[in-house]
Amino acid sequence: MDIQMIGAGSLGLLYAGKLAASGAKVTLWCRSDEQAAAIHSSGITIHHSDGGELHIPPGVVQAHPLSEFHEEAGAAADYLVLMVKQQGIEDLVERVFIPYGRSIQRCVCFQNGTGHLELLQQHLPSGAIYAAITTEGAKRIGPREVLHAGSGTTTIGPYNTEGMPESGQKSASREISDIRLIELLNRAGFKTYLSNEIYTAIYRKLMINAVINPLTALWRIPNGALLDDPMRIQLMKELFDEACAVYDAAGISREDHLWDQIVGVCRMTSTNTSSMLKDVLEGRATEISWINGSIVRLGQRHGVAAPKHELLCRLIEGTTK
Amino acid sequence: MDIQMIGAGSLGLLYAGKLAASGAKVTLWCRSDEQAAAIHSSGITIHHSDGGELHIPPGVVQAHPLSEFHEEAGAAADYLVLMVKQQGIEDLVERVFIPYGRSIQRCVCFQNGTGHLELLQQHLPSGAIYAAITTEGAKRIGPREVLHAGSGTTTIGPYNTEGMPESGQKSASREISDIRLIELLNRAGFKTYLSNEIYTAIYRKLMINAVINPLTALWRIPNGALLDDPMRIQLMKELFDEACAVYDAAGISREDHLWDQIVGVCRMTSTNTSSMLKDVLEGRATEISWINGSIVRLGQRHGVAAPKHELLCRLIEGTTK
Repeated sequence: MDIQMIGAGSLGLLYAGKLAASGAKVTLWCRSDEQAAAIHSSGITIHHSDGGELHIPPGVVQAHPLSEFHEEAGAAADYLVLMVKQQGIEDLVERVFIPYGRSIQRCVCFQNGTGHLELLQQHLPSGAIYAAITTEGAKRIGPREVLHAGSGTTTIGPYNTEGMPESGQKSASREISDIRLIELLNRAGFKTYLSNEIYTAIYRKLMINAVINPLTALWRIPNGALLDDPMRIQLMKELFDEACAVYDAAGISREDHLWDQIVGVCRMTSTNTSSMLKDVLEGRATEISWINGSIVRLGQRHGVAAPKHELLCRLIEGTTK
Repeated sequence: MDIQMIGAGSLGLLYAGKLAASGAKVTLWCRSDEQAAAIHSSGITIHHSDGGELHIPPGVVQAHPLSEFHEEAGAAADYLVLMVKQQGIEDLVERVFIPYGRSIQRCVCFQNGTGHLELLQQHLPSGAIYAAITTEGAKRIGPREVLHAGSGTTTIGPYNTEGMPESGQKSASREISDIRLIELLNRAGFKTYLSNEIYTAIYRKLMINAVINPLTALWRIPNGALLDDPMRIQLMKELFDEACAVYDAAGISREDHLWDQIVGVCRMTSTNTSSMLKDVLEGRATEISWINGSIVRLGQRHGVAAPKHELLCRLIEGTTK
C-alpha cells in the first residue's frame, strides 16, 4: 500500500511512523529541506508517554521536501494523506492540486472544519476525498521526534460535493477503498471507524474549537481555567448559543449534550495549552479563520449573524498581525 | 489652605508633594499603613525626567492610612481631592462619604468617566463637586517616590446633578471657590484651567481610552503598535463609530477631528504601555467597567446598543478574572 503523506508536524510524524512500522510504504513530504534531511538520515522516533519508544530506522519512511513533489508521487499513491494545518491548504492547492490533481485517486484530509474540503474538491475531479477527525494526542518534540501523548480514536468518512455523506449506492471499488483505508489505520495501531456521519463529527469538533480556542488564546490560560469563573463560562455559553443558531439555520444536526461535551473537554484537557494559544504565544498565524471564521461565513450564507464570533476572529487576527 | 487628598498612587504623590512644596497644608490618606509610615518617616521625593528631584521632607505632608479617616478631616478640608482609581470609588463611598459626606464642602475628582460623579453626588448633599482631567505624566517608583515623566495640563470644571455645566448664575462663594482652586494648582506648578466644558474634556478622554486601552490590553502591545496594521486600525475605527452613535444619542457633543486625536495619542505615546495593559500584565482588576462599560451603559439609557464595547468589557474582565 503506497501512502504519500504531506505535512510532518506532530500528527504527520506519528501517523507516518506507525503506518511504516506496520508495513505500509510511506513517503513523507516535509515543509523544509532540513526536516526531510533529518528524517532521511536518522529516521523517526515516537516516544510513548510511559517512557518507551518506537524507532523507525532511516530509509523506512522516505522523506522529501514538498518543493520536490511530482506527478508520479500523486499517481502512485493509494492514499494521499494531508496532515498540514488548514492555513497550509491554499499553498498545497497551488503546489500540488492544481498541477497534479488529475492524477490523484484518493485524498484523506485531517484538517478541522470543512472549507478545505470544498476547495480541494474543485481540484480533484476524479478523486475520492475523505474527511478525517482524530483525537490522538501528539506533541512534536523535534524535526523527527514526536511524543504520542495519548491514544484516541480516528473517524473517517467519505466527502462529496453535495456536502453530505454519500447516500446513494456506493460503487464496489469505492467500498473496497473505504474498507482498505480503515484496515490500514487499524493495523497501524490507530483505533479507526468509518462513519457515514462524518459531518456530525466535523461540526462537533468545530464547535468545541470555536468555543475553547479563541478565549484561551485571548486570555492566555490553559483550557481548564475557562471553568474557573462564572463570567468566563457565561461568555463560552453565548458563543455556543450564537453558533447553534448558525448550525440550525444551516441544517447541521447537533448531538444532544454538545455543551456538556465542551465542558467535559475543558476538564479532561484542563492543563493543556490550546493550539491557538500556542500560535499566539509564538507569534504565528492561527487557525481562527478556519474555526470561528467558518461559523461566521456559514451564518452569512444562511442569513444569521454571529457578531461575537466575528469580533473574536478580528481580535485574534489583530493579536498575531 | 487645607487639602485632604485620598489616594497616594503616582498622581497622588505628585500632586500632594508639589502642593505641599507651594505652601498648602496637605494631608495624604494612603491605602496601606506601610505607605503612610514610609511617607511619615521619609517624606516624598519627586524625580524629574531631567535627573533633578524635589524632596518634600518628613512632616510636611501628613500621611495616614485611609482606615483612620475621620469626620474632622472631612470638615477641615477646603478641598477634598480624590486621587484613587475608579475601582476605589465604591470603597470610598462606604468608608468616607456615607459616614462623613455631610461635613465635606468641596470634592475634586481626578477619575476618568462620569459614573463616579453621579455616585458621589448622592452622598454630598451640600458639597460642591469638581471634575478634573489631567495629562500630567507620572510613574510611581516606590511607596513614597514618583517620577514626573512629563508636564501636561489640568482641566477642572464644576459638576452638577443635571449632568451639564452649571448654566445659571453662580453664587459669589462658589465663584471664589472655583478661582481659589485653580490658583492653588497653578501656584503648585500645574498648568490648570477652569472649564465650563469639562464634559467635553471628560468624554474626549473617555473615547480615547475606550478605543486604545482594551485593544492594547488584549493584544499586549504598546499604544503605537495599534497603528502598525490596517486591520487593527479598522477595529479601532469601528469601536470609535459605535461610541459616536452612543454619544450622539445621548446628546454629548464631540469635537471635530476626535478620531485624528486618537491616532495622534497613539503616535505621541507610541512606546507607552496603557494603564489597562499594565493592570492585565500584573493580574489586577482593570478600569474597563468605567471606560467601555460607561459607554455601554450610556447607550442602554438612550436605546443604542454597543455590542463591540460590551464584548470587550467581558473579554477584559475574563482576562483578569
